[in-house]
Amino acid sequence: MSFIRLMQQRYTTKNYDASKKIESEKLKELQQILQLSPSSINSQPWKFIFVSDSDTKKQLSEVSWLNTNKVLESDTIVVFNRINNITLFEKQIEEELPEGAVGYYKEFIKPKPEEEIKAWFNKQVYLALGIFLSACAEMGIDATPMEGIEPANYDKILNNKEYATLVAVAIGYRDNEDFNQPDRKPKSRLAFDKVIETV
Amino acid sequence: MSFIRLMQQRYTTKNYDASKKIESEKLKELQQILQLSPSSINSQPWKFIFVSDSDTKKQLSEVSWLNTNKVLESDTIVVFNRINNITLFEKQIEEELPEGAVGYYKEFIKPKPEEEIKAWFNKQVYLALGIFLSACAEMGIDATPMEGIEPANYDKILNNKEYATLVAVAIGYRDNEDFNQPDRKPKSRLAFDKVIETV
Repeated sequence: MSFIRLMQQRYTTKNYDASKKIESEKLKELQQILQLSPSSINSQPWKFIFVSDSDTKKQLSEVSWLNTNKVLESDTIVVFNRINNITLFEKQIEEELPEGAVGYYKEFIKPKPEEEIKAWFNKQVYLALGIFLSACAEMGIDATPMEGIEPANYDKILNNKEYATLVAVAIGYRDNEDFNQPDRKPKSRLAFDKVIETV
Repeated sequence: MSFIRLMQQRYTTKNYDASKKIESEKLKELQQILQLSPSSINSQPWKFIFVSDSDTKKQLSEVSWLNTNKVLESDTIVVFNRINNITLFEKQIEEELPEGAVGYYKEFIKPKPEEEIKAWFNKQVYLALGIFLSACAEMGIDATPMEGIEPANYDKILNNKEYATLVAVAIGYRDNEDFNQPDRKPKSRLAFDKVIETV
């Protein structure tokens, strides 16, 4: 299927069929895709936690606002974390990246206030989120990105110390009756000319 | 090709073949894909400017740091903008989004300081960037995401008033001798266990 068809057919799944499980090879593939995600200067300021354990999912479901049922009924919750310890991040890039990339970081990012450095990390994590949602669409896996969770409680449950939860994605297979499927509820987007300009 | 193969084979293109042009149907498809990109509460706080005009590309190339040649030799520069006028954004979502989504914005996002609201917009734009880079990979188009540009000068050249340049992507077709192709320079990423955790 062409990429544009995938984008037309993917949607934010509201109801999962809890009896349908994602094959473990597919989960592994999604993990490898995230590992390969690009980021500015290859900074990779992130960690991705795949939660399939039902006790942990239950705990997460209780700190997920309106998303409780999606967390319970989907197969796996993928928690997108940004690295939260800047010293650790800097050690990591010194060890892993070429001099030019570290130089870019030192000149353009490091001098900024801590909050702006973390905001730069956050953007990279969302880039990986876009790659991940594309991968799910291509692999026929349904997904629900969820900002409406309690990140600090996710961090506690996941024993996150050097990282911080930004957003989570429920993945699994839709309930066949899900009302939000595009053939039942057409996708709504801003008009083409409002978001696209050509020069 | 499977998505994971696409991720293994895509790379940050360093040298373009200026004689190879992207077919206009493919550019149109990329534009439609961006229009369809998901975002938190379907907020779509963005605009995407496709610059194929060679005079404008020349001007942009002069405010693109080390990326001058990529801007000149690629086919098109796609400029990713976040909406910069919060009042305009709020008017837009009042008109376009269902009550529940507007309510989420009013409760969780609007009370934050302006800089944090814009940081939330930025994350959505980077999500679209991840979708876009996936689309390019699937469509066989080479791409170079570029944070190393002068956003304020991009805004001036593009006469951006209510939007702000965040990042640009050069797209086109690689020079066959490009040194950065994965078969010449293997992709480097953090170790799997450093970025993936399973529970």
